Amino acid sequence: MPNETSITFIGSGNLAWHLAPALEKTGYGINAIYSRDLTNAAALAKRLKNCIAVDHLDFSSSPSSIFIVAVPDKAIGTVAKQLKLNKDAIVVHTSGTTAMEVLGSFKNRGVLYPLQTFSKNKKIDFSSVPLFIEASNDYSKTIIATLAQSVFEKHCYLSSEKRSQLHLAAVFSCNFNNHMLHMAKNIADSNDIPFQLLAPLVQETIDKAFDIGPENAQTGPAIRLDHTTMDAHKAMLEDNPELKEIYITLSHHIINQNKAQ
Amino acid sequence: MPNETSITFIGSGNLAWHLAPALEKTGYGINAIYSRDLTNAAALAKRLKNCIAVDHLDFSSSPSSIFIVAVPDKAIGTVAKQLKLNKDAIVVHTSGTTAMEVLGSFKNRGVLYPLQTFSKNKKIDFSSVPLFIEASNDYSKTIIATLAQSVFEKHCYLSSEKRSQLHLAAVFSCNFNNHMLHMAKNIADSNDIPFQLLAPLVQETIDKAFDIGPENAQTGPAIRLDHTTMDAHKAMLEDNPELKEIYITLSHHIINQNKAQ
Repeated sequence: MPNETSITFIGSGNLAWHLAPALEKTGYGINAIYSRDLTNAAALAKRLKNCIAVDHLDFSSSPSSIFIVAVPDKAIGTVAKQLKLNKDAIVVHTSGTTAMEVLGSFKNRGVLYPLQTFSKNKKIDFSSVPLFIEASNDYSKTIIATLAQSVFEKHCYLSSEKRSQLHLAAVFSCNFNNHMLHMAKNIADSNDIPFQLLAPLVQETIDKAFDIGPENAQTGPAIRLDHTTMDAHKAMLEDNPELKEIYITLSHHIINQNKAQ
Repeated sequence: MPNETSITFIGSGNLAWHLAPALEKTGYGINAIYSRDLTNAAALAKRLKNCIAVDHLDFSSSPSSIFIVAVPDKAIGTVAKQLKLNKDAIVVHTSGTTAMEVLGSFKNRGVLYPLQTFSKNKKIDFSSVPLFIEASNDYSKTIIATLAQSVFEKHCYLSSEKRSQLHLAAVFSCNFNNHMLHMAKNIADSNDIPFQLLAPLVQETIDKAFDIGPENAQTGPAIRLDHTTMDAHKAMLEDNPELKEIYITLSHHIINQNKAQ
């Protein structure tokens, strides 16, 4: 890793929180953390060596050659407009859905999209996280790929269009999956059943899905058209109309998908 | 394990397929497999020692002292009416949602509900599966608990009412979770992105849910009220109205649940 390479993070959220220290460990220097809220920037900066916290976007005299924009999607465009850099600097964002071209005013631009869910209070092992990259030119691509290799086990090149599709798939397999677990936990909690007892079932569900394919792994009342059980479940959800609606919608969809296969 | 204890399975589906050989391994004798379709019964019987396949329910002269009814929920009542047994035999069903009282005509009755998803083409390690039992009397409870201990690592006593709630939680955390993975795979497949690349994300999602609780683990566009991304996703689902509806319903529910917390 080129010791002289210095990075600035624009944003101090969940991803920056984990990625900045990981990059520092491999030899990159993290020069600055920007946040609109200086307290947030400082909280991350103090986890790093020789790193300053800033709340302005004028980096025209910064020593950093790579700027990682890790802010909410809707803020990327605004940040890009305000960001002042040395013209040779590379700017990447880390969004799944936002096109690389939101950074169109920078010659050397790219994307660094780690396919993972980050929470500040849960450590992450980047070496098992697949990274999807994009770059505006060969120079940027080389620099981004070098950075990728230093922390992530594997990286793939993916267009903005396909990356947004991948992000949509991630919402289903991560956010919606987590929500299903949340609903299951609510039901377990209401009945004094420890949620942890569901862990082997959930682990087997995902092992099976990645082993034989989710389209071959479905079990339960919907796929076997067991209306007796589905009716009993709907009756149990009578006092929670929103959840009952979700139960009905998903059960119908499982049945319809199975017909279509 | 009492070598003289002989078991008959009523049903030859996914659960019987895995549980019958597992019980045989611990010293139980599996005497007979019943299925309406003799071919199905025979397919399982031939995986076992000295086991016959039958398509009738008159077991009045059977050497079995335990009968495990592992048929679809809606068939349990019908089977219970037709089943002829020695009056001291124990009859258990394996359903999550069906009350034990569907077996009310048998003095020694119970339930053996393994909280797991079973597919014939995927091996299962019962020692990590939590088992929920119920029994009509102490005699049955002792016999059922002995059987439970022989194959399952842990078992808990749970009433019919709470068991049906647990089963509902299982539908959310297993069947609906698998369906989310199915939808994610469809999106990945349509874009030539290997589904396996989503495995670390999904593993981290469930690790985090059981580590810090799903209510503390949610990420993604809905929880951060990122309407830019949600609108982009909805636009991408324009030609799949059913899936778009699921996306909208679940996103709203994530937002509402978060408000309610």
